[in-house]
Amino acid sequence: MREYFPNVAKVKFEGRDSKNLFAFKYYNPDEVVGDKTMKEHLRYTLSYWHTLTGGGSDPFGSATMLRPWDDAETSIEMAKQRLEASFELMDKLDIEYFAFHDRDIAPEGKTLAESNAILDEIIDYCEELMKKYDKKLLWGTANLFSNPRFVHGASTSCNADIFAFSAAQIKKAMEITKRLGGKNYVFWGGREGYETLLNTDMKLEQDNLARLLKMSVDYAKEIGFEGQFLIEPKPKEPTKHQYDFDVATVMGFLKNYGLDKDFKVNIEANHATLAQHTFQHEVHLARINGILGSLDVNQGDPMLGWDTDQFPTNIYDAVLVMYEVLKNGGIQPGGLNFDAKVRRASFEPEDLFLAYIAGMDTFAKGLQIAQKLLDGEELETFVKERYSSYTEGIGAQIVEGSVGFKELEAYALGNTEIVNKSGRQEMLEGLVNQYIYNS
Amino acid sequence: MREYFPNVAKVKFEGRDSKNLFAFKYYNPDEVVGDKTMKEHLRYTLSYWHTLTGGGSDPFGSATMLRPWDDAETSIEMAKQRLEASFELMDKLDIEYFAFHDRDIAPEGKTLAESNAILDEIIDYCEELMKKYDKKLLWGTANLFSNPRFVHGASTSCNADIFAFSAAQIKKAMEITKRLGGKNYVFWGGREGYETLLNTDMKLEQDNLARLLKMSVDYAKEIGFEGQFLIEPKPKEPTKHQYDFDVATVMGFLKNYGLDKDFKVNIEANHATLAQHTFQHEVHLARINGILGSLDVNQGDPMLGWDTDQFPTNIYDAVLVMYEVLKNGGIQPGGLNFDAKVRRASFEPEDLFLAYIAGMDTFAKGLQIAQKLLDGEELETFVKERYSSYTEGIGAQIVEGSVGFKELEAYALGNTEIVNKSGRQEMLEGLVNQYIYNS
Amino acid sequence: MREYFPNVAKVKFEGRDSKNLFAFKYYNPDEVVGDKTMKEHLRYTLSYWHTLTGGGSDPFGSATMLRPWDDAETSIEMAKQRLEASFELMDKLDIEYFAFHDRDIAPEGKTLAESNAILDEIIDYCEELMKKYDKKLLWGTANLFSNPRFVHGASTSCNADIFAFSAAQIKKAMEITKRLGGKNYVFWGGREGYETLLNTDMKLEQDNLARLLKMSVDYAKEIGFEGQFLIEPKPKEPTKHQYDFDVATVMGFLKNYGLDKDFKVNIEANHATLAQHTFQHEVHLARINGILGSLDVNQGDPMLGWDTDQFPTNIYDAVLVMYEVLKNGGIQPGGLNFDAKVRRASFEPEDLFLAYIAGMDTFAKGLQIAQKLLDGEELETFVKERYSSYTEGIGAQIVEGSVGFKELEAYALGNTEIVNKSGRQEMLEGLVNQYIYNS
Amino acid sequence: MREYFPNVAKVKFEGRDSKNLFAFKYYNPDEVVGDKTMKEHLRYTLSYWHTLTGGGSDPFGSATMLRPWDDAETSIEMAKQRLEASFELMDKLDIEYFAFHDRDIAPEGKTLAESNAILDEIIDYCEELMKKYDKKLLWGTANLFSNPRFVHGASTSCNADIFAFSAAQIKKAMEITKRLGGKNYVFWGGREGYETLLNTDMKLEQDNLARLLKMSVDYAKEIGFEGQFLIEPKPKEPTKHQYDFDVATVMGFLKNYGLDKDFKVNIEANHATLAQHTFQHEVHLARINGILGSLDVNQGDPMLGWDTDQFPTNIYDAVLVMYEVLKNGGIQPGGLNFDAKVRRASFEPEDLFLAYIAGMDTFAKGLQIAQKLLDGEELETFVKERYSSYTEGIGAQIVEGSVGFKELEAYALGNTEIVNKSGRQEMLEGLVNQYIYNS
Repeated sequence: MREYFPNVAKVKFEGRDSKNLFAFKYYNPDEVVGDKTMKEHLRYTLSYWHTLTGGGSDPFGSATMLRPWDDAETSIEMAKQRLEASFELMDKLDIEYFAFHDRDIAPEGKTLAESNAILDEIIDYCEELMKKYDKKLLWGTANLFSNPRFVHGASTSCNADIFAFSAAQIKKAMEITKRLGGKNYVFWGGREGYETLLNTDMKLEQDNLARLLKMSVDYAKEIGFEGQFLIEPKPKEPTKHQYDFDVATVMGFLKNYGLDKDFKVNIEANHATLAQHTFQHEVHLARINGILGSLDVNQGDPMLGWDTDQFPTNIYDAVLVMYEVLKNGGIQPGGLNFDAKVRRASFEPEDLFLAYIAGMDTFAKGLQIAQKLLDGEELETFVKERYSSYTEGIGAQIVEGSVGFKELEAYALGNTEIVNKSGRQEMLEGLVNQYIYNS
Repeated sequence: MREYFPNVAKVKFEGRDSKNLFAFKYYNPDEVVGDKTMKEHLRYTLSYWHTLTGGGSDPFGSATMLRPWDDAETSIEMAKQRLEASFELMDKLDIEYFAFHDRDIAPEGKTLAESNAILDEIIDYCEELMKKYDKKLLWGTANLFSNPRFVHGASTSCNADIFAFSAAQIKKAMEITKRLGGKNYVFWGGREGYETLLNTDMKLEQDNLARLLKMSVDYAKEIGFEGQFLIEPKPKEPTKHQYDFDVATVMGFLKNYGLDKDFKVNIEANHATLAQHTFQHEVHLARINGILGSLDVNQGDPMLGWDTDQFPTNIYDAVLVMYEVLKNGGIQPGGLNFDAKVRRASFEPEDLFLAYIAGMDTFAKGLQIAQKLLDGEELETFVKERYSSYTEGIGAQIVEGSVGFKELEAYALGNTEIVNKSGRQEMLEGLVNQYIYNS
Repeated sequence: MREYFPNVAKVKFEGRDSKNLFAFKYYNPDEVVGDKTMKEHLRYTLSYWHTLTGGGSDPFGSATMLRPWDDAETSIEMAKQRLEASFELMDKLDIEYFAFHDRDIAPEGKTLAESNAILDEIIDYCEELMKKYDKKLLWGTANLFSNPRFVHGASTSCNADIFAFSAAQIKKAMEITKRLGGKNYVFWGGREGYETLLNTDMKLEQDNLARLLKMSVDYAKEIGFEGQFLIEPKPKEPTKHQYDFDVATVMGFLKNYGLDKDFKVNIEANHATLAQHTFQHEVHLARINGILGSLDVNQGDPMLGWDTDQFPTNIYDAVLVMYEVLKNGGIQPGGLNFDAKVRRASFEPEDLFLAYIAGMDTFAKGLQIAQKLLDGEELETFVKERYSSYTEGIGAQIVEGSVGFKELEAYALGNTEIVNKSGRQEMLEGLVNQYIYNS
Repeated sequence: MREYFPNVAKVKFEGRDSKNLFAFKYYNPDEVVGDKTMKEHLRYTLSYWHTLTGGGSDPFGSATMLRPWDDAETSIEMAKQRLEASFELMDKLDIEYFAFHDRDIAPEGKTLAESNAILDEIIDYCEELMKKYDKKLLWGTANLFSNPRFVHGASTSCNADIFAFSAAQIKKAMEITKRLGGKNYVFWGGREGYETLLNTDMKLEQDNLARLLKMSVDYAKEIGFEGQFLIEPKPKEPTKHQYDFDVATVMGFLKNYGLDKDFKVNIEANHATLAQHTFQHEVHLARINGILGSLDVNQGDPMLGWDTDQFPTNIYDAVLVMYEVLKNGGIQPGGLNFDAKVRRASFEPEDLFLAYIAGMDTFAKGLQIAQKLLDGEELETFVKERYSSYTEGIGAQIVEGSVGFKELEAYALGNTEIVNKSGRQEMLEGLVNQYIYNS
């Protein structure tokens, strides 16, 4: 088979002092951290769209990236070359999983029937390559936002024909995800929102979104697809307001429509920050509500107001998010998907490797530090002690539900000296730093 | 009784061409709009805290406003003078309702028992003045954020003694709200959130918040308080992250804890925009979910990142929010509360009048225009037509739930020509402008 | 000649009560406002790029807009059809001016020489149409951001070959602007900024930017181009940090490099708000510094963090900006350029008309109201009175420069009673509203 | 003398593995980094206002912090106790410098004369303590924002009496700064901006601001004060728009009024981020323009829109800013002033120590890593190589100014193959991480 990156060999772990740009300095797949290897913890995933189909265009300029697989004569041939390149990348970067949308793995045909046929052909080849390279599918999904037909939404379109089309596309995407052994199936509602309330029937749109999700659950049962369903929150972009704004909004939506047993969330760092939450906040909120499904590890620029989808290199996010993952007992059947694109100015093929290496090293280091933080127990102990008043006396009664306003008033009237203690934020931040520097 | 604003007479409606600064140009209480008078529609409410106790201090400077009631010798005497001044203001501005926190209507004592006693004394006088001036209480609430004891939260404090204290304070506030015939009782969780996740047990905190709300419901039943319970969302400030982030978050929280039957929302414009939503968005979302309770009409500065609580003068917000209110069949038992403070540089007593006049005229004009928009039916018709595909054929089947993925796929495979129509945002914005200019 | 919009006739002024979507309700070209007609005041300008070449693509989806001129067989033929359509639009909308970039009016060739030849051919035809339709060029410019070659900037590229290319492209664009009688020439540095400081020599980049501007001045003198040079500030997007951040930054840059006599600014509303300034702020700052050149009238969404370039429909911005323009003695040789694109969902050709009508009516109304505000003199008088202490006594001495710290200390020590007056913000906002409602 | 923090001994360097909360883990004053000791590089400075007078109040709550020096019976006595406590803090934390405003070091009297007299008394005692403890003054300044008299600004007030008062206050503050051997004098215009353009004469206000600065320069010469004058940029808060928005704006202002030779900038991290710039951006911009004066090291919360003034613990900012400082040849006569306040919930006296330790360790570590980055030369070499095209051929001619548009067009027409290289952002971010982890 053709080699697409002849200049880059398999990327190896060479340790922290390596000056080799094409080596891991911290990601050592077989190194045991806590009770598992790094590889088992991190379940790194290649994002098909950004990695294979992203060209570096932006609203003010066209693509900067010429890719070795772009030289095919037909779009189907190009899709196959892309597949080959993607497995070469996974192989050379030691990435076990990948994730894709129907429309980035295969080109769209003139009709839905034709698109489905093309998809089948590409999925055949994909299956073959998965076996050859021993790679797995973390999740599949349907792209219901790029084609102009989704201009007013997919399941939330004002046009019922579009709802039907969307359902058909998801049906097919779910089938191929099942066929490839996908561990999850993701819903990201890129156009599920509104541009202006002046022309919008939000009630009908949200009802329809719920209808589509319900049909998805029904169909999965029908075909025996047992992967986890995931919703990916995002507050805005491309629409002015996206219905799956953030984790809290999604939880409320699912509860409201009785869908909460069937869905978890796929949390993306840059979507969290666009909603003015830290990445850790969203992951923590999902964890304590039992709906932490999977992670899109990337990062935004806190000074910019759009989704830059940069490769993640901020160690604080990596440490604090891996801390949540460890407390969650791991992220499986989810994984850490690099929903990240190389910067428009990082247009050389080698940048793909350098960017993945930077991201993989960051989360490997994050994992190590998070495990040490857990093992060191300072944070846990501090928090436990801080809330200890709820484990006895009036606090325990509050938690048990054995007191009401009258008992609490009686207690409060007699409790004239209340003592609060410092929250110690600065000390705790310094403590996390010490773990980062010393790990 | 002493007159606190001797230089300002009763503010009268003088019509659009009046140059009298101390007259209404658009707010004409008895003018009928649609099926009710302006006064019945708008249910204007004086906010006790900003209007009577705000002094204009900010994080970089001390109070600029010397108020005529500040000359009392004791804090109780000052509280009584404030009461008198507040009723004079309501009287002169023709405002029917007021709203207060326990700690702005009465000073705090050294102990809870003493605070309660002071509160009783002040409420006695308040009741007397309400009769004398024929004014009503829109809502009461407890201030669980100003006192240092709430440094880590009230019901979400890490200290169980603070939970107990909060419960006692709410109990009392609910009792006096009932006594004064309050139409609603509001919960704003000024410190219910976190400063850093490093020291926070968010699960316990949110559970405790739910416990407190449950106790409130129970106690209301016990004492026969039949006012509407309202939660006021805010995303941040004073804490880094407030649990009642926005309407969607509050809905999810209430559902999650089985509290959704007992609470509606009190939506504040500036809180909406801090969460990156328009005021209309929050009101619309609450309306279609049947939880639109009451409104805090103010406005923020879209270029600033904190709660400026300015008096509302933006006609777009007023029109679009009153449009939602009209579609909701009115806002009762809620009202339009001016949770707004005069700017620090508007420190003269007369500015209180000028600011209320500006705000009251804005929403009066907003009401007029919204009614005309409804009567004109262009907006309604446009939206209805836009979604008409869901009233017949495949769309109707989707809504009825009589089709699933298989049927929709079959339909989509055969439906090769899909036609979308323009959303016409610019035309609709121009249409709203035309109503504004011509009304 | 082919008619591209056969369904739309010439748009006429029909007055405020018209229900005709394709009529002006407020823009009446020959109506006299103050000392000039609306048309003379407003100098409306069609933006070639958004109007003729924008297709509605965004980072998450492809073009939604099929345009009647897209059916040509060659790119040159399409460019000519675009030209024809643009003049039909100007003619039917009664727009006197247009503005263009070299690369939206003509396609790029394989080499610079070929591109220049194509440009010449297109400009020939443009000149012919300008005469035929009696239309004028407000400004021309060179697109130095779309082509991948500008990935690291144009004059601020790290690659000297790109600087040279940019200079050549500007030279040609200036020549054709001169040939078409362009009133101005604009510099918008779409890629003149940085993505990360880690790889950036900001000093050299800014020096080079200044060098390019200096060469432009020199060349204009050489060829006798007497149009006004304009710089268009923008804080970010597409780059992380754009060097021409805002008006204040541009003023400093020009002063620093001795270029301040040769440039004014072209201020865009959405760029102002991305920099966290109101549109009025930027226009005011430019006006009082004598560098107000021209305006790109559009608007952003204050809840979104990217350049939405919406058609302007906010009456507050229109009033306050036209107020500044009137105080400036007009905007000529600049104009009001609609650097605005129809929303992605407004994809029908008719939306182009509806959007321009909405924008043109908004600024026509804004002009009317601004003139009345000026005539009414309340605002002017309030401000004049507010600063009156600088017209006599110690204030006048401060302004004259006849006192220093010692004299002022002596004065202050003896001046024990200082009285400030209210800033009256709420009253003034209400006053502006009254003008808006009543005009 | 009384000991205010009897529970905390002198804080010592104990090294990276220390678990002692009250020890430095990384800040080792005498450790040599590059050519100087840490102490010489960092010039740590105690901020008098936040540290000694901050009580933890915020717009929604009152002070949480009871300080040991608050028990004095008179305000003058309290000021002296504060002085004593501040020197105990500096002594125990090994901080060499402090900085103050006139109104936080001494209480204000009823008249300016009385205030000056009080100030003299306090400064006497301060001078005594400086000698005793061998401490130095980094800078002094006048607080022209807290007192209500500055409600409309100080030198930009609409009231000339306020201008005079401000001048008198600065005169005195400059005199005491000189007397205490202050290395710098800072201007932060807390109220120098506007709240609404509707009532503002921005031209006169900016002219007056320049007049005041000119008088300051004149008076410094007159009394022989040779400290560096510094302006501290901030974009907003407390005013809606502050005139000294950011470094670029200040540079332009100084140039515009011919003041650029006499002022440098004091850059605060949180002010940078409020202006949507990174801290490094502002420091870099000042450095390459030769106006880097001093630093206020703190940090904001990127998710919040106001000045949180947190103690700095983000290692990325520390590394990148110290990199700029090293390239600047150091920061002297400026320093690193902790313009930071303990969080409202960190209300115990011990938190002051813990917070300073966290901040001092962060910048000590940042210094170490920055020096290694410089020594490693990878960054420098990458940048140098990236711009190498400007050192020869056409690039060198551009820089020398020996070519214009014609020569460049000729060059470009003949240069048909332009090759750009990747900007390598991800690789460089990974490289910085490697330095952080390994240092």
